[in-house]
Amino acid sequence: MSEETIHIARTRSEVQRCIRSARAESKRIGLVPTMGALHEGHLSLVRAAKRCCDFTAVTIFVNPTQFSPTEDFSKYPRTIDEDLKALRELGVDLVFMPEREELYPDRFSTYVLPPAVSDPLEGQFRPEHFRGVATIVLKLFNLLPADVAFFGQKDYQQCQVIRHMVEDLNIPVEIQVCPIVREPDGLAMSSRNRYLSPEDRVRAVALSEAVSEAARLVQAGMTDSAAVTKCMHDILHRAGVTKIDYATVADACTLKPIDQIDRPAVALIAVYVGATRLIDNTLLPAK
Amino acid sequence: MSEETIHIARTRSEVQRCIRSARAESKRIGLVPTMGALHEGHLSLVRAAKRCCDFTAVTIFVNPTQFSPTEDFSKYPRTIDEDLKALRELGVDLVFMPEREELYPDRFSTYVLPPAVSDPLEGQFRPEHFRGVATIVLKLFNLLPADVAFFGQKDYQQCQVIRHMVEDLNIPVEIQVCPIVREPDGLAMSSRNRYLSPEDRVRAVALSEAVSEAARLVQAGMTDSAAVTKCMHDILHRAGVTKIDYATVADACTLKPIDQIDRPAVALIAVYVGATRLIDNTLLPAK
Repeated sequence: MSEETIHIARTRSEVQRCIRSARAESKRIGLVPTMGALHEGHLSLVRAAKRCCDFTAVTIFVNPTQFSPTEDFSKYPRTIDEDLKALRELGVDLVFMPEREELYPDRFSTYVLPPAVSDPLEGQFRPEHFRGVATIVLKLFNLLPADVAFFGQKDYQQCQVIRHMVEDLNIPVEIQVCPIVREPDGLAMSSRNRYLSPEDRVRAVALSEAVSEAARLVQAGMTDSAAVTKCMHDILHRAGVTKIDYATVADACTLKPIDQIDRPAVALIAVYVGATRLIDNTLLPAK
Repeated sequence: MSEETIHIARTRSEVQRCIRSARAESKRIGLVPTMGALHEGHLSLVRAAKRCCDFTAVTIFVNPTQFSPTEDFSKYPRTIDEDLKALRELGVDLVFMPEREELYPDRFSTYVLPPAVSDPLEGQFRPEHFRGVATIVLKLFNLLPADVAFFGQKDYQQCQVIRHMVEDLNIPVEIQVCPIVREPDGLAMSSRNRYLSPEDRVRAVALSEAVSEAARLVQAGMTDSAAVTKCMHDILHRAGVTKIDYATVADACTLKPIDQIDRPAVALIAVYVGATRLIDNTLLPAK
């Protein structure tokens, strides 16, 4: 029924005009930034936006500045027809899908130097990644000033980077983090799951098994980070997942390593399954 | 007559509430960011804002992140009573004068990595300066979302840094650059002029003499940057100004050095007169 009302904007001026008119009607605006290749995780963010906002905007942009030259920017999945179909069905009001030049013209040279929480974990393995993420997210917040923006907990560190950036730079937007959406066997939904061979798809279940075992152990009273970490590594190894960037326990806010799980904490994993890099995480029950 | 209506805000929430209510009345909002110690240059920005906006906000904040440890942050002039008196008389609506902790709490760690135009000139002599400037200006744009923000051409490179940042980060604000305001003898107004001894005050006139001679030469047909630059150095030296950070001609947009003045260009000077660092500049008449 909302098929008539979806607006697809490809330019900055178009998207700004559209947001401005929603603002003029005093609508509460929800923003869901994505790189497309939408799965149930993304759609859960859209549904959350629809629930608490009067106007839902989704952006689809595979952001080049968050990929390193060795990463999968050029082969990152693009499924634009299916994406738009799903967003139409959910009654999204606005989709912003710009070309690269619209956001990064030739002389572009200003970036966000992301907060300290970007340094560990992903920051160690993908050094410029969060600089690119923070920069594009700030640009989108400026182009589509929203009341609430929705991000998935799957990218836990990204959520913290964005939360800290919003606080530090006084960006007038509320950040809502939505739970990880999982396949029936536990694998966290990801646009990159489609890269997995059938064998790797089986192995990939080890990530969610490892983080949920970590949560179980902490729930049962284990407070030693090293012991929890060892269990996660064991589960990954047993599944044949041996290229581990990290599988660790960190402070839930700063993402610094902790020895004792005596405060809000999070178990995080980044591994390669075959050639595909996958991540997962879970919050650990606070004492 | 406007003495009753000036609002002095010291907290983020206060200033946001005040701006939000001006927005709700559809007022056109003008923003003049300053570090206080207001002189006629600043006041000309306020008058420009008053002319084209319905609501004028001035910020007074000596921004620590734009000073290096060896610079004059702690002794930077603070003349808050005189500043407020002048702003009241001009009919300013809102003054935001926060404490340091209000804008830079302990865990603050997100910065703007400023555009390429920040690299030459000041960027060579004050390496972190524009990172601090870009960061505080972005924060103020977020806290006091204005339709137009006013900056003085005195800080020419700063104006370009802000313009490029606004474009790159898609910040929804219009930047207006106002002309340099000078003393009767030509010295560009600056909060730092009060540091000058009587002898240095006389010497300091060489800056404006040098840039205006540069403009005269180019007007008269000189196109060789080196020749124009030499004239500026000669004038400074004759006046006894020998500690020259730069006195040069650059592309008016990128601030990169140019050999031939065959496009919009600018003559810029930064020198020490006694212990006081002063800057000046002038646009060079395009061919």
